[in-house]
Order: sequence, then structure tokens, then C-alpha cells
Amino acid sequence: MDESKHREIAELGEFGLIDHLTSGLSNVNDATLKGVGDDAAVMRYNDTDILVTTDLLLEGVHFDLTYVPLMHLGYKSAIVNFSDIYAMNGTPRQITVSLGISKRFTVEHMEMLYAGIRKACGIYGVDLVGGDTTSSRQGLVISITCIGDAPAGKIVYRNGARDTDLICVSGDLGAAYMGLQLLEREKIASAGQKDFEPRFEGKEYLVERQLKPEARRDIIRELAEAGIKPTAMMDISDGLSSELMHICKQSNTGCRIYEDRIPIDYQTAVMAEELGMNLVTAALNGGEDYELLFTVPLTAHDAVAKLPGIKVIGHITKPELGCAMITRDDVEIPLRAQGWNPLAE
Amino acid sequence: MDESKHREIAELGEFGLIDHLTSGLSNVNDATLKGVGDDAAVMRYNDTDILVTTDLLLEGVHFDLTYVPLMHLGYKSAIVNFSDIYAMNGTPRQITVSLGISKRFTVEHMEMLYAGIRKACGIYGVDLVGGDTTSSRQGLVISITCIGDAPAGKIVYRNGARDTDLICVSGDLGAAYMGLQLLEREKIASAGQKDFEPRFEGKEYLVERQLKPEARRDIIRELAEAGIKPTAMMDISDGLSSELMHICKQSNTGCRIYEDRIPIDYQTAVMAEELGMNLVTAALNGGEDYELLFTVPLTAHDAVAKLPGIKVIGHITKPELGCAMITRDDVEIPLRAQGWNPLAE
Repeated sequence: MDESKHREIAELGEFGLIDHLTSGLSNVNDATLKGVGDDAAVMRYNDTDILVTTDLLLEGVHFDLTYVPLMHLGYKSAIVNFSDIYAMNGTPRQITVSLGISKRFTVEHMEMLYAGIRKACGIYGVDLVGGDTTSSRQGLVISITCIGDAPAGKIVYRNGARDTDLICVSGDLGAAYMGLQLLEREKIASAGQKDFEPRFEGKEYLVERQLKPEARRDIIRELAEAGIKPTAMMDISDGLSSELMHICKQSNTGCRIYEDRIPIDYQTAVMAEELGMNLVTAALNGGEDYELLFTVPLTAHDAVAKLPGIKVIGHITKPELGCAMITRDDVEIPLRAQGWNPLAE
Repeated sequence: MDESKHREIAELGEFGLIDHLTSGLSNVNDATLKGVGDDAAVMRYNDTDILVTTDLLLEGVHFDLTYVPLMHLGYKSAIVNFSDIYAMNGTPRQITVSLGISKRFTVEHMEMLYAGIRKACGIYGVDLVGGDTTSSRQGLVISITCIGDAPAGKIVYRNGARDTDLICVSGDLGAAYMGLQLLEREKIASAGQKDFEPRFEGKEYLVERQLKPEARRDIIRELAEAGIKPTAMMDISDGLSSELMHICKQSNTGCRIYEDRIPIDYQTAVMAEELGMNLVTAALNGGEDYELLFTVPLTAHDAVAKLPGIKVIGHITKPELGCAMITRDDVEIPLRAQGWNPLAE
């Protein structure tokens, strides 16, 4: 191979690499409705659409067992997959769990991990149907695939946003990221100390958002009961900015969001202040919120505004206007996808 | 945790650990027909059954990039999943590919891996529909999930074998294992030598069986065209002995197979001779053959005997007779599951 042609993977980034490797793919099976490029792949069987999503979690890259309990890790590993299925307006039904286990883990450790996975399955009504288990020479490897379904025609893709649609988010943003900062700070503080007690008082919400996120099944149900079908939707795993730009790119639109509309919890704000970090940057780019980002037609304004736990943060525009945030002092700043690049780790 | 209660995972083995961790699971979704315990999970949607199988491959445990070209690795990673779907009498339709990539890999390396995956998909008519890509702190991690389908009622499980059924295998056994021994031998011989040329003359079949296996779609079609539906089926990935014992355990039967009926290629025999290994042991326990092991009713004898590439090697018995092989000199020796334990690596 010509050394001069070598390209670094981190340069392309996750989405660039996937785009590159999957370019020119065409599907040969009639059942395949949607391949690479959304929260989940979609297959149609008669009047049902089947959804498939998968996540690979590696120790040292995605989680640090110094402060992540195995039961929480199992729970979160399942939840992040359920979240991808809800983000397509589907219902998660089954998961497969593949594990690579290094020698330092015992049967009891795996029982704890599975207890978390089984708890998440129990709460969300998902069946654990299979997987693969092997040894790992290094750390723990967790690969989960989730299968879901939706009645034909109910699935919501990323590419359906239209000019004047309202941009909505559920819950609040940035707390999981601040939880991670807090856990990392306490890990450093604990180094070399026996019987160290981490200081989490008044910040329990941040820790919970990081260690034990939930998937927003409640929001999907709320929207269905109100008769609102979003035009585009995805879950916020890499940060609001990055996800919104995915929706706008795939829908061929621009957008405007308003700084003062971005939902942020009090504890998130206090923590950002303590750490001297920009609060809005954390909310825009922090990631791991697992909230839903979606667009609805302008005509749904009154209906959506009434729903608890959902906030309208802006609107979709024509593509030539680009993607921007209007600050509190009325300055327009372009959005940038500064979300976590898992290939730069 | 009470240290005295710690149990080593290797003691339980892969199947023991999975049985332990998934004990007491019950499915809550109507669509879930079959969970843990076969080549694939099964979901029913109207008149179609959906199959899902997944494999996790880790560098240093499942493959050695010293002698495995990335394109072959990609091809094989896809094939082993297709094989699981055929082993259920289904058709593979889609795969998702998740990769953990360490820093020593470039974009070109991933292009080669993907070229192999895409080639396998092209030949077998499978759509690549998604995945996840991240960095890895250690070696290459490949997690592939395959989705397949079958008309309702066509799926063949492991638990359908009945007393007097004939036991059949496709192709020949032990060659992939001998190929691995050969590649390992040449790797050791090459250590420290520049411009080393491995000696594969007359053993090309063994290398091909190890590096570029195929899934037996042809056998599935042959059986369908002949109007034969196996009563039980699985693919041979861990070795004939181990797989046959899975079928007998799940079907609550015993079995007798005949040493002189086990199909073995000439090159496999020569290589076993060279290495001073027991040939039948290699064929029984070698693994990675990706051939199909299945049972058919005794009444299908004439029909199955006519089919090319399929050999009848024995028959199913009542459970109290246990699982055994009748040697060439008419001695009955019990079968043992000596297949590869991925958790003892």
C-alpha cells in the first residue's frame, strides 16, 4: 500500500468514515426500506415495519468502571438502544446482548451487568432473545442490538422536517455531561485515598442523568395520544447541535433555535458555574441526554405547547439560511457540530 | 461482595454462563417466538418469521491479523452470521456492522475490511443497513448482527430431532481447523525472517476453509427443491460433537454416528498425519466448518441420499442410549463436547 495515501480515521470522524465506507450501497431486498443513516434501519413486512439499531460500548472509551457500577452500565447499555427505537416512533421489542469479558471479571460481575440489562428490559417490556459471549484480552466489550416495530407508516425519519416546522425537545439538556464532569472530578480527587467519599450533595440529578438515563417512551406515548406525528425525530446522544444539524442536512433545511428556550436544569447551571464552563455550550454539545429532538408542523403549536415535558426551542427555515442559534442579546451564531467524536478518543 | 463466592467464568464455559445469566427469562412480546438457545432468535410478524443472530469477534481471541488479510476477515465475519440464518432454514436479508478501531488502523484498512463484508453481502444478496463505529483502546472489535426471514412454519429449530431420524452433514469436516494449524505453524516459522514465503502447496483447500468459508445456501435450496424439511438443524461452528450434543439435548434424544461415515477431505487427512494429530478428533471437535448438521425422518432416506454434498452419518436414538460414535472397529465411544470454549482463551 502507498504510505502517502494513508488517511487517519480521526480526520474523517465517525459519520465521515461511515459515509465513506457505505457509499454506493444499494439494497437488493424488497423488505429493506431504510439502510444506513438514521437512528435505526427499517424493514417492512406486510403492515409492520421492523426497526434494528445497534451500539458498541468499549471499556476505556465509553465507560470507566472506576465510577460506573456494573448494574448501571447494563441498564444504560440497554436504554441507549431503546432510545434509538423510540426516536423512530417505534416500540422496542427484543435485544441481543454480546459480551467480551476479560479475566478480571467473575460470574458475579456478569450477574450484576445482566441484572441491569434485565431490569431495563422489564421496565420497558423488551425481551432478551440472544447474543454471543466470549473472552476479551483487554477490557469489557458490550454490543447490544435492539429490534423494534411500528405499524406501517408510523415511523418518523430524520429527513422529514419542513420550512416553518417547530423544533421541540423533551426534558432538559447538558445534565448528563455535567454528571460526567462531576464523576471525573471526584475520581481525580479520590486518587490514592482510602475510604474516599465523593461529594455529590445537591448534584444527585447530574449523577443520575449520567449513570442511569431513561428512554423517553412517555413522550412518544404523549405525542401519540395527542394525535401529533412529528415530521422528523432523533434522540440526543451526541449533543443538540450535532443532532439538529443531522436533521437539517437530511431534510435539506436550515434552522433557528433560541438560547433562552433551551431547557436546562438548575443543577446543571450550578455545576457549569463551579467548573467555569459555558452553560449553553454544555447544553448544545454535551451529549448523552437521550432526550428526543423532533419537529412538528406549525399548526401543531397549540397542541404541543400544552404537553408537559416538551419545549419548543425554535423553527425550521429554508436551507439557504443555515443553522444558527439566536442568543439572549439577539446575536445570531452559527451552530457547529461539536458533539463527541468517538473516533478521536 | 463475599470473595469466597466468586466464580471463575471459564469454569462455566460459554453455554453455562449464558444459561446462568438468562435463566428464568420469560418473553412479554407476542411476536417473540424463540429467544436464547438456537442459532438465531425468532419473531413472528403475520405470515413471516424474522430471524436475528449476532457474533462478536475480537482481535487476539478470534483472529490474528498476522496471517488473516482484512478483506478475508470482513468476508468471514459476514459469512458466519449468514450461516446461522441458513441453519434456521431462513434467508439472510440485512446486516449491521459495528466496529471498534484502534489507532494503528487507517481508512484504507477499513476499506479493505468493508470490501470483504460488501463482497459477502453482494454474493449472498444481503443488505448492509447500519452499525456503529467507534475507537478502541486495544485491538479491532467486530460485532455483526444479521436479520433474516422465512415464511411462517418453515423455520427449523435444534429441538425437533426424533428417535430413528437420520443425522446428515454437508461438505466435509476438520479442514478449517487444520488450516488454522497450518497458518499457526507458518507464523511461527516466519518469526524474525524477512521475505518469508509460507508453504501452502497442496494444502490450499485447508487455508481457504479457514480464511474464506462459505455459508451453505446451496444445501438449503437443494433440500427445499427436494421437498425435504429437516426436523432439526444447526451449523457446525464449534465442532460436530458439540453441535450434535446440542441437538440431542434440546430434542431429548440420544444418537449414534459412525466413524467411517464422517466426511473428511484428503488434504485434512494429510495434514493431520503431518502434525501427528488424530484425524477423527479434528473432524469431531475442530470447529469453524460452517457446514450444516441436520436430521431428517427415516422416510426421507432415499431422497436425501441422492443429493450431492450431503452425507448420512448416523441416526437419532432414544435419550437413554446417550450420544456415541461407533468406531471403524465397532467400539462405541461416548461423544464429548470438546468444542472450543471462547471463555477459556
